[in-house]
Amino acid sequence: MNQIQVNISQAASQEAIQAQAEAARKALATVDQATGAGNDFLGWVNLPSTIAPELVEDICKTAADLRDKCDYVVAIGIGGSYLGAKAVIEALSDSFAAYRNEHTKTKVVFAGQNIGEDYLFELMRLLDDKKFGIIVISKSGTTTEPAIAFRLLKDMLEKKLGKAKAAERIVAITDAKKGALRQLATEEGYKTFVIDDNVGGRFSVLTPVGLLPIAVAGYDIKALLQGAQEMEAVTRDDSQANPSLVYAEARNALYQAGKKIEILVNYCPKLHYFGEWWKQLYGESEGKDGKGIFPAAVDFSTDLHSMGQWIQEGERTIFETVISLEKQEHEVLIPLDNANLDGLNYIAGKRIDQVNKMAELGTRIAHVDGGVPNIQITLPALREEYLGQLIYFFEKACGISGYMLGVNPFNQPGVEAYKRNMFALLEKPGYEKETAAIKARL
Amino acid sequence: MNQIQVNISQAASQEAIQAQAEAARKALATVDQATGAGNDFLGWVNLPSTIAPELVEDICKTAADLRDKCDYVVAIGIGGSYLGAKAVIEALSDSFAAYRNEHTKTKVVFAGQNIGEDYLFELMRLLDDKKFGIIVISKSGTTTEPAIAFRLLKDMLEKKLGKAKAAERIVAITDAKKGALRQLATEEGYKTFVIDDNVGGRFSVLTPVGLLPIAVAGYDIKALLQGAQEMEAVTRDDSQANPSLVYAEARNALYQAGKKIEILVNYCPKLHYFGEWWKQLYGESEGKDGKGIFPAAVDFSTDLHSMGQWIQEGERTIFETVISLEKQEHEVLIPLDNANLDGLNYIAGKRIDQVNKMAELGTRIAHVDGGVPNIQITLPALREEYLGQLIYFFEKACGISGYMLGVNPFNQPGVEAYKRNMFALLEKPGYEKETAAIKARL
Repeated sequence: MNQIQVNISQAASQEAIQAQAEAARKALATVDQATGAGNDFLGWVNLPSTIAPELVEDICKTAADLRDKCDYVVAIGIGGSYLGAKAVIEALSDSFAAYRNEHTKTKVVFAGQNIGEDYLFELMRLLDDKKFGIIVISKSGTTTEPAIAFRLLKDMLEKKLGKAKAAERIVAITDAKKGALRQLATEEGYKTFVIDDNVGGRFSVLTPVGLLPIAVAGYDIKALLQGAQEMEAVTRDDSQANPSLVYAEARNALYQAGKKIEILVNYCPKLHYFGEWWKQLYGESEGKDGKGIFPAAVDFSTDLHSMGQWIQEGERTIFETVISLEKQEHEVLIPLDNANLDGLNYIAGKRIDQVNKMAELGTRIAHVDGGVPNIQITLPALREEYLGQLIYFFEKACGISGYMLGVNPFNQPGVEAYKRNMFALLEKPGYEKETAAIKARL
Repeated sequence: MNQIQVNISQAASQEAIQAQAEAARKALATVDQATGAGNDFLGWVNLPSTIAPELVEDICKTAADLRDKCDYVVAIGIGGSYLGAKAVIEALSDSFAAYRNEHTKTKVVFAGQNIGEDYLFELMRLLDDKKFGIIVISKSGTTTEPAIAFRLLKDMLEKKLGKAKAAERIVAITDAKKGALRQLATEEGYKTFVIDDNVGGRFSVLTPVGLLPIAVAGYDIKALLQGAQEMEAVTRDDSQANPSLVYAEARNALYQAGKKIEILVNYCPKLHYFGEWWKQLYGESEGKDGKGIFPAAVDFSTDLHSMGQWIQEGERTIFETVISLEKQEHEVLIPLDNANLDGLNYIAGKRIDQVNKMAELGTRIAHVDGGVPNIQITLPALREEYLGQLIYFFEKACGISGYMLGVNPFNQPGVEAYKRNMFALLEKPGYEKETAAIKARL
């Protein structure tokens, strides 16, 4: 098998799925023909098949240049300008990469995804005696979290190297023409890449936003795009051969049947941040107008020893979507121990992953028996090509699913509410009225 | 202020809280007088005030010895034998500790909390040229995940050092008398600590299970216990001065009002694993008999750019419990930039944490306005004493809350279901009937 598969046989009855089929086909057409709400944000749909080879080469060359010059590259961004790259890099990295001192490898670390004073202090302390560069990702250049991080790290880099040398180690990914970061990049002569107007943050991982940090970390972005392109072709299909369509049908059938929480499950801790990326994709696309499945994520078997009890016997309002990883990269056999005090000799000689697979199968049976419907997504391996497939699969299903739910899957009006209050509380110029109003409430 | 505080003024009306008061007082008495279901698992209640000073000294001495001998100590355990130590160590550590090569500091890494073949391969590759030791934590010594990890790492250590020298770097935390690990420890002469019968895994962080790894990581377990002891005294109180009682009242009032999901929020990424610890504590204690609040956790402001939209405008079935951290350890001011292209000069000269605080306050107002009730827990600082308070506060509230819900908060029958299936699928001796039954279903 060289493609991800979706299995919904344990999720819902054929009748329940059938009842969604018409709505799903309509929603698919709405995405593919760009006839629905938010249709000015559909740039991601044909992106894998239309991305210019010259752009991909430019990203690879820029990444190689940063790798030459830097031991650390700080990727500054938040939300979709953080989670996509983080998810792919973590999935492909050694579990203990941070601890390993391989001076041949450039490490990608992240900033601007929080407002942590200690976090930034400790990052700057780490970088103090290191050769580092910056990828700053912001459409406007004024989003508070990344703007603070960039102001500090740019200052630090310029003090170390001088303005001109620092500029050679800074890459800006921003709007084509307007905004603070574009203007600064032009003035300082930074290398830049463009964030297109028609791709929203949570759909941006296959643009320079995600591709450049992934390439700097040493991974093959051409294979990632190749996988996405394969899935782009498959998910145009108007039948049950389209995995994104099937997934969208199943989860909407379950939601209508009262399953309010979807738990994305992995059995490989390297997929942890894929869960985080997926939570943004679905939560931000569907959580509006007082509706939407609540997205949660767990790492099994670890979390079978924390959330397992709730899942097995709590309220029956949940379903699970399992990313089932077919293949590990390394082989470790369980050794024989003649004393056998721990009683493990019955699995001696087996690969550890065989045990993990039986934990997965045993859990699926136990949870389905316990009233938790199960969707299974089979991922051949943690390789760039398959991760590209997985990304596009989830993106396409998200567009379909959101339209089936009856929302605009491509806006995020609720994200502004806290920002408005924060600006008012910080007395940002232009927010004088809001400042007065909020202060009156405190 | 030198103690954590709970604020429920934005959570529920006084009447709604009042309606819970009687049930809460009864539940508190049921915990304190040990008259309820699961009362043979209440060893944690008086633990902070009764732990023997000699035991604490012995833990400190053992930790110092491991630190002398090892650059890395692998803490092997799962569930409560993993999350408590992980939560405290992450809260107190440099955000980039893994990247820092401080040869004076012993690093604690974890294993046995998953069945990851690549994870274990990569851990062994990391440790190959390092001085390492092992803390193995298991009541029985036969739990699959930690038993596999221990078999492999013990084998590796013995091949490096020989059996006798390896035994000097292995500490076992296990049952006082029975079980595979106790027997092995006796045979091999390992240093051991006891897991008491009356403390369940998710309440074990203030026993050697949590204390030894925390001490090895270099943190002050006496201060941690001191904080817990302060909270133990405060939470015996039968009035609204008892923060655990108040928290239990508020969350049960909200659950009865249809708030089905509790989101634990932090504004400091170092508290991420406290969220994971809390999820086990509450999920495993309350998720049974078809009921229980679903526990989720987010790191803000990071996740305001992923889950923020859902929280602001999705189904109105959620409430938030915010751990509000008063004080950062380091000071970083936002620098002035004469060009001010990013428009941040209005906060130049401010501490980053002042901005974070306004993000927090602005978010609380926005979410409450959006129909999300808010419980606020104020934590003075990320110091051992306050973390000890926070741990005990949540534990005591969990016991009270579970009894209010009408469940036994101290069992976890649902955790066995997947294990039974896994053993049947792996054809474990003694599971012949289950093996035949499950194979017939495949």
